[in-house]
Formats: sequence, structure tokens, C-alpha cells
Amino acid sequence: MTGPHRRSVIVVGAGIVGTVFATLLTQQGYDVRLFERHADPRGCAPRAGKSVNLTLCTRGFAALDAVGIGDEIRALSVPVYGRVIHAADGSTEAQPYGSHRECLYSISRHRLWLALLDLVDQNGVPMAFGRGCLSVDPSLGEIVLDSGERLRSDLVIAADGARSAIRHALLARPQVQYSQRYADHANKELYLPPDCVQRAGLDHHALHIWPRGEFMLIAFPNLDGSLTATLHLPLEGDPSFGAIRDPAALEALFSTYFADVRPLMPTLVEDYFSHPEIPMVTVRCSPLVTGRLALIGDAAHAVWPSYGQGANSGFEGCLLLAECLARGSVEEALARYDHERQPDASAIADLSEDHFEEIRDSVGDPKFHDRKRLERRLNELYPEHYVPLYVRVSFSRMPYAQAVRIEKRQKRLIDDLLAVVADPSKPDLDAPAARRAIHQYLETP
Amino acid sequence: MTGPHRRSVIVVGAGIVGTVFATLLTQQGYDVRLFERHADPRGCAPRAGKSVNLTLCTRGFAALDAVGIGDEIRALSVPVYGRVIHAADGSTEAQPYGSHRECLYSISRHRLWLALLDLVDQNGVPMAFGRGCLSVDPSLGEIVLDSGERLRSDLVIAADGARSAIRHALLARPQVQYSQRYADHANKELYLPPDCVQRAGLDHHALHIWPRGEFMLIAFPNLDGSLTATLHLPLEGDPSFGAIRDPAALEALFSTYFADVRPLMPTLVEDYFSHPEIPMVTVRCSPLVTGRLALIGDAAHAVWPSYGQGANSGFEGCLLLAECLARGSVEEALARYDHERQPDASAIADLSEDHFEEIRDSVGDPKFHDRKRLERRLNELYPEHYVPLYVRVSFSRMPYAQAVRIEKRQKRLIDDLLAVVADPSKPDLDAPAARRAIHQYLETP
Repeated sequence: MTGPHRRSVIVVGAGIVGTVFATLLTQQGYDVRLFERHADPRGCAPRAGKSVNLTLCTRGFAALDAVGIGDEIRALSVPVYGRVIHAADGSTEAQPYGSHRECLYSISRHRLWLALLDLVDQNGVPMAFGRGCLSVDPSLGEIVLDSGERLRSDLVIAADGARSAIRHALLARPQVQYSQRYADHANKELYLPPDCVQRAGLDHHALHIWPRGEFMLIAFPNLDGSLTATLHLPLEGDPSFGAIRDPAALEALFSTYFADVRPLMPTLVEDYFSHPEIPMVTVRCSPLVTGRLALIGDAAHAVWPSYGQGANSGFEGCLLLAECLARGSVEEALARYDHERQPDASAIADLSEDHFEEIRDSVGDPKFHDRKRLERRLNELYPEHYVPLYVRVSFSRMPYAQAVRIEKRQKRLIDDLLAVVADPSKPDLDAPAARRAIHQYLETP
Repeated sequence: MTGPHRRSVIVVGAGIVGTVFATLLTQQGYDVRLFERHADPRGCAPRAGKSVNLTLCTRGFAALDAVGIGDEIRALSVPVYGRVIHAADGSTEAQPYGSHRECLYSISRHRLWLALLDLVDQNGVPMAFGRGCLSVDPSLGEIVLDSGERLRSDLVIAADGARSAIRHALLARPQVQYSQRYADHANKELYLPPDCVQRAGLDHHALHIWPRGEFMLIAFPNLDGSLTATLHLPLEGDPSFGAIRDPAALEALFSTYFADVRPLMPTLVEDYFSHPEIPMVTVRCSPLVTGRLALIGDAAHAVWPSYGQGANSGFEGCLLLAECLARGSVEEALARYDHERQPDASAIADLSEDHFEEIRDSVGDPKFHDRKRLERRLNELYPEHYVPLYVRVSFSRMPYAQAVRIEKRQKRLIDDLLAVVADPSKPDLDAPAARRAIHQYLETP
């Protein structure tokens, strides 16, 4: 791959996915150039309310480890072992993610981004800031920068996010199926400082969720002991971002629905009124490639943040595309990447939309807890044969689409068991009917 | 509206919708400029296989009459009063569109376009060919032409078709819902010369359809006695455009499925192999406006050609937007246009996808004929209260969404009648059960 025939690659967008992909290909001997529309964020304060937290899981770390930054990122993150659900009456219930101390890593997106930009520099990848891409010619592998400069390469990668400017070159081709679907909900970043979190005795190694039906609050731990929260609200209706226009309305919402968390947010009012509402969008595109152009990350398949898979899925796509490139021509590699990525991109898009409703509506529902309890129990008894979907998605690298296929069978088993066990809060899986249902499940391939 | 405060409008795209809209606004006193990416087609031969026919109906003529070209277009068109269905066994059945000699007007898209370009010139609208639009700034109402020139106006109209380049400026905004859905079928233009049509005795005032389940052939009459046909085939599978790669495969398809029409197509082989496959796409976008930018025609809401409403709906949108502009500020007008157009754009998109399957699969089905017969009978008996959906869509200006709402009730009546009439081929609507069903329908508001 070195020498005069080194393949050249232009990556447009130096966000968290573009930086990882550029580093990965550089390490594999490609001649990579990286262009970013915005200024270098290092040394600047993060834009207020734009630095939401994300959780990294097995899929994400596969790529971060591949580029050699996995341990550094783990050290910058807080491991979280499950959710703590805060009911409206103030009671709490801990829901571990799995039965084997599986954990996610909570980190601020901004902190992760800064580390990845440094990684790019350490790997000597030429990176230009303040250089937007005006247009792309997929057949030539040529981009036009907003300076007017034209650059060619063997491969152009659009890593410019959910509202990708380059994607238009793909959409304008016939037979390209595309949709962007915004939720009628959005979220807004809020803040719980370390002393308040400590005083309230909130478990620092958990995600905290206050589900309230049509809306909710979620808080992610930071290394310094603080929590970054996101308030999810409908855009219109009551309550909604549209309806809360003054501090009194905001205080009324919190005193009615989040009374226990209100004292932990001394900057609530200023945070709420200075931070933007962040939309949630699902992007679906097929194919993800044309000519010498490929989409990766959110540009390819943005998902709602509910399953915590946006960044992880983006990183997974980087590894896949790099593997495809290592195995053949650019044309073959892009065709294979699209073929393999398509069902998984579609599966995680569906899951993320469904899971949003699950968290919001069901996490506070006793039947939901019965199912989760049964799932954990089955996973303890049959760790090889029954693995909750959430565990497969977050703590394995099984393709999303395959995990969804298996989950359909697992869901039927839970339905069958719930129909026969006497007390779902203490399910007796040794009862004959339960044994029959489990036996049938285990025997079916 | 005249004088120093004349509103300025830039229309991007001088296709059949852009030309009508530019003329309409010019006649209403606006200062309009029209830009077209392609060269002036007048004086050039139409691009082979790109000049499919379309059918104009009441909605379309409302706009064409408003700009004063309705009668000229009627004179260039062939009125068609219904469909003739050609069964696989060679038998035919005439299906009139309505009970009152309602007719559509069949015209080549290219011929229509040329007439509209002349209309633009006659109205003195400045029109520049070979001038593509690189980008648009919706908040400023500014476009950048590919020459680098920047132009500002009070309103920018994207009339640049289903694969609109300008639309991207709208898609990149948050909360814009968008999808483009291509059919897994396409169509290709074929030709039946006048002497063949005459020899075969095909009714020249009808659309001719050869429905064959997964595929079909449709032929539209031209003024010179010829028919322009479109062959609808899947893109892949058997038979499909992908599978028919040599004359032998094409002849096999025709001798098996279209034996009666094969002798009427002396240029079949050369037409098939020189004409492109034309994709079918549904474009859905909400909102259709942002800042000083509005989408019209296919750029706003391309539909599959099956209901014959693409051009008609585009012309209807021109009238609506012009009416909105006449009633208020640009900002108010665009908000009202979007609000009023959205449900109808959505309804005709759904109808066009559904109708494609109806024509292809059902038109040859006896039950379909029973329903149509019953519909025509009810329409004769209750011309005010029972109007077939097709008639409302094609021969009225009732909003599409309203027509669809009414059709749901009408459909239930047909279901009820089919359940009680003894012989659907000669339905006795005076039988007590039938009278009860009709009475109930007429009494319900």
C-alpha cells in the first residue's frame, strides 16, 4: 500500500467519525487528507448546550482500540453499569444492563472529539479547518472546496454529519432511496454539579432516568462527579419546548414532574434558556455509495440517540469500510460496504426509534420490569442461548440485523413465560409449563 | 403591484411548471426572472425516449386557462374518454372515465413544453437558458448561478424537478421531513405509428392498457394518429428491464404477453434499445418553504405517473401559490401555501402509488370491473352524492385530501352493495338490501 500506488482518500468532516476513519486509513498506509468546515475547537470553549454526553460500548471501542486510543478514552469516561429509574413518587429502581457487570462508558462528546483531533495530529494526517466542501463529483472522486480549489482522490468519504452537505450528490442520482425523519421531540442539555450529585447520593456509575410518559429527563455521569442531563420534551403541546417560554413555566414543569431533581440543578433556568433544542433525526439512505463516494457515520445513517448507538454504529462502519477496502478495488469495496452495512443501518434506525418510546413510556411500567427481570434470569441460566437484545447491541459486535432477528424468538419466549408463570416478580422457571416453553425455545434452531 | 415596489421573483427551472408559474406572476405584475440549466429545446429534436405523453385534466387546465393558453393546448391534444383494457386473450373492454363524457387531454410532454416556452416569451418574461443554479440562500432570497453571478429577489422558486438541486438548501434545515422513494419498476417509451394504429382499428380517443400483473403497457394517442406507449417493467427479475438485454428476449416478452400489439410496433427493437428507462419517484417534503424559498411542481411533490396527476398537481400548486401571494406578505403567503398544499401533496402521492398497483394488478380483474360498473351506476343515479374518486381527482378541483376522505365512505358503500347484490354484472339497486345500504350512505353526512 506504500509507494507510488498508495491510494488517496479525502475525508470531508473531522467530527468523531471522520477523525477515526482518517486515522484508521492513514495507519493502514493510505494517503489521507481531512477537511473540516468549522474552526479547530481545541482551545475554544465548547458551544453552550452542544456538548451532550454519549455512551461508548463494545462496537465503538473495537474501532477506538484499532486506532490505539481505546484505553485513553476509557480513562476519560465513567463506566456505567445500568439505569436507575426515578419514579414520579420519588422511589428508585436500579436496572443493571446485564447479568455480568457489563458497562457502558459515559463521556462528553466534546471531550471525545478533542481527543480524536489530537489523535489525528499524532498520526500525521493532514487536516484543514475552516474548509467547507461546496460540491463533489462522485465519478471523478473530485471535491470543490469553498475556496474554489479542486482536489481529486481515489475515494471521497462524506463524514459531515446528519445534515451532510455532500450527500446531495448521491440523492440527485436516480434510484437512490432516502428519507430523513425528525422526531416531534427534541432534547436540551442541563447540568447537575458534583456537590449536588454527591449530596443527593446518586449512584455515579449509572444512567439516571426520570421517565414521565410523553417526556423524560436522562442524566449521564462525568469524570468530575457532575451529571450532564438531557431534558426530552415534545416540540409542541403541553408540556413542550414550545410551551415553556418563561422561568415560571419551567419551574412549574419541574415542581410537578421532577421535584426530586430540581434542587440538584442550581443553574436550571439559565441552562434552559441559553441552550438550544437539539433535534433528533433518523437518516436512511440506500445505497450509501456512488462512484468514488461513500457516506459514513451520521451522514450515512443518523439515528435517534435513545439506544446510545449513533457514535458506536458510526465507528463500526469505519472498521467495516476499512476492511472492505483492504480486500479489493475501491469499486468492489464500496459495493461490499453498502451491501453489508445496509441491513444493520436499517435495523439500528428502527431500534433507536422504538427504544425511544420504550424508555419514555415503558421504563416506569411494572410489566416492563417483569420482562426485564425475566430476561436477566434467563440470561443467567442460559448465558449462551438467551442474551437480551440490549446486551447483544451494546456488549457484542453481532450485526444489528442479526440481533434483531434473534430477539424476535426471544420475545416470543418471554411472552410464553409471562403467560404461564404465577408471580412475574419471582418467576418460577422450574414449573412444568415454564420448563416446556424454555425447552421448546432451546430446541428450535 | 406595479411601480417601484413590484415584488421580484426568481424562478429556477423553466420546465412545464416553472414556465406556467413565471407567466402567471408576470401577468399579475411581479418582476420575474426565469433560469434554466439546459439549452433552449426549441429548434432541437426532443431527446429520444424522453418525450412521454401526459394527460391534462381539469386541475391542469385551470392554470393553463388562467395564463391564457388553455385552448391552444386543447387544440394540440387528443381528448380521451376512457380506457380500453386489452386482456391477455386479445379481448378488449372499454371503461369510460365517467358517466358524463368526461375526458382527459393527451399531449406529448415535449410539445406542451415548447408551447409554454413560447408563452413565456410572448409575456416578455426574461428567461436565460444554460444557466444552472449552484446554491441558494433562502433567508436572503439569493441564488448563485454557475457563472458565479449572485442575484437577489423577494422570492426564489425551485421548479427544477424531482431531482431538484436547490431543494438541498431546504433539506439541510432542522425539522424538515423528507423522503424520496423510487419504484422498483420503471418505464420506457415505445411507438405505434398512425398507419398501424388505424389498421388495427384502435379507438383513438382512449388510453389503451395491456395489464399483465407485474408489468404492463400503456398507450396514449397523439394528434397525428400515432400512439406513444410506455412499457412498465420491474427493474430486476423475470421479466424485467435488467433481464431483457437482446432482441430475442424482447421478442419473447412481446410474443408471450403482447402478441396483439407487437405487429403495431415496427420500430420496437430500435426504440427499446435506444430509449432510456425512466424511473418513477415519489418526493415528499414538509415544509415546502423556508425563508424566501418555495418548492413547486416535482421539486415539491413528484408522484408516480400512474394517476396522471404529476403535471396537473404541479399546475394546481402554481395557482395556489399565486393566490397566497396575492393575499399577503411573502412570509404569510409561503406559510399559507405550505399549510394548504401539504395534505393534498401527501394525498396524491399516496393515491399515485396505490393506483399504479391498481392499474397493473386489478384492471384485468373481474372484481375490479364489478366495482367500476357499480360506481358508474351510482354516479348516474346520484350524480351529486356519489362521484367516483377518479372523477373527483381528474374532473374536478376538489382538494385531493378531501376527495380521499369522501372516497373512504364511498368505498364502504360499494363493499356493502357487493355483499348484497345477486349479480354484480347487472346489479339490482332496487332490491331492499341495496336500497337500505344506499339510503344509509345518503343519510350520513
